[in-house]
Amino acid sequence: MKENKFGVGFEEALPLYLRAAKMANIRLTGIDMHIGSQITALEPYREAAAKLLRLVDALAEVGIRMQHIDFGGGLGIRYRDETPPSLAEYSAAILALVRGRPESLLLEPGRRLTANAGLLLTRVTYLKPGQERSFAVVDAAMNDLLRPALYDAWHEVRPVQPRREPKRLWQIVGPICESADFLALDRELALGEGDLLALLSAGAYSMSMSSNYNSRPRAAEVIVDGETTHLVRARETIPQLFASESRLPPSR
Amino acid sequence: MKENKFGVGFEEALPLYLRAAKMANIRLTGIDMHIGSQITALEPYREAAAKLLRLVDALAEVGIRMQHIDFGGGLGIRYRDETPPSLAEYSAAILALVRGRPESLLLEPGRRLTANAGLLLTRVTYLKPGQERSFAVVDAAMNDLLRPALYDAWHEVRPVQPRREPKRLWQIVGPICESADFLALDRELALGEGDLLALLSAGAYSMSMSSNYNSRPRAAEVIVDGETTHLVRARETIPQLFASESRLPPSR
Repeated sequence: MKENKFGVGFEEALPLYLRAAKMANIRLTGIDMHIGSQITALEPYREAAAKLLRLVDALAEVGIRMQHIDFGGGLGIRYRDETPPSLAEYSAAILALVRGRPESLLLEPGRRLTANAGLLLTRVTYLKPGQERSFAVVDAAMNDLLRPALYDAWHEVRPVQPRREPKRLWQIVGPICESADFLALDRELALGEGDLLALLSAGAYSMSMSSNYNSRPRAAEVIVDGETTHLVRARETIPQLFASESRLPPSR
Repeated sequence: MKENKFGVGFEEALPLYLRAAKMANIRLTGIDMHIGSQITALEPYREAAAKLLRLVDALAEVGIRMQHIDFGGGLGIRYRDETPPSLAEYSAAILALVRGRPESLLLEPGRRLTANAGLLLTRVTYLKPGQERSFAVVDAAMNDLLRPALYDAWHEVRPVQPRREPKRLWQIVGPICESADFLALDRELALGEGDLLALLSAGAYSMSMSSNYNSRPRAAEVIVDGETTHLVRARETIPQLFASESRLPPSR
């Protein structure tokens, strides 16, 4: 941990297990690691997993046997042009290390499972072409998809019905009254007012980070299953935003 | 606007008013400016307001009379050691420009009115002193107060009951599983587990930007009026987080 808030440092783990093993009311069941987020190479997993297994073996030698080993999450996805390991490569690397071991194996590849299964659909409400920069104002905003403003993250923007007109460099921005409210910068697109745009890779850290900033109700969520759609989260309404608020009693 | 999404460029305003004045269904009523956010000097207001008034006078000369002039918001506050103009200095500067004018005057000093009227109360749940860095985990997180993670903003941290013990440099972090989840860095404080901390200047851009990230219900809001307190927004509950969601129909 040293530099960040998570977990305990590697060299502290063994003494902590030894101490915990002597406690009457503590049952040691496993070990978990977390090496980061949106990791697009295998080597950090190989290194960290091998290190963890050496610790698990050292613990077994003193009679402390883990029932599970958790290699955590962090497995990256392609947002733009990243080349994360395939699931086959990832599992081969992990299997090479754990094959034949007695412990249960846990993995936590959240973003990898859901990010590219979701997209944010938004409509162009207003175009402001300019000499220095051109802005396409859409009806989604940073309250719907915070990652560009928060992490400078790149989400691919794809028109639902492509146009044949010449393309132009657009800044895709939301209607919230602050400069941080952008969804995508410098995208070469042919756009018209009313167009629907899909912001890809929005199945992770998108709806879960959405807010009511600028008194904006949150979006609906729809699951698409082949030709069928299911509304799985109703669009939030303005009255819902204030439903938990109560009036002040009259002033004294 | 040129470089950002707001409004129209200054030199476009006059021709736009002239064009709009000829439209049968448009009634011109006023002019609004927005020069930025958290501005801690008077000069930008003086300059921009004087420029706006010259435009209003130019419009009047061609018979287009504004009923209101809106100098917008942006007036800064003290978060740490900023020295924003006092309200007396601000109003004197504005009055010097507008005294005797016929138009109504609008101002939008949102943050200035509310930011330092609010604080976020949080409890220290766990202390992790370390050789390189020491972490104080509190029960509030980036979902409650996004400004530090989003803008690298500084909010003063004040223990509700100060301790006499020696101080130490703490990183005040939330319990959300990501490194961006911090509330305040490098604060010299004497802390104990269970201590209540006040994060100051949280009356603007705090609750309004809060989210349910990590499935965290949002905080309650309490108005303090002298010795009296009023719960004006109920603490959100876990069931409320999922109330708008619906089950998928059984798979085909």
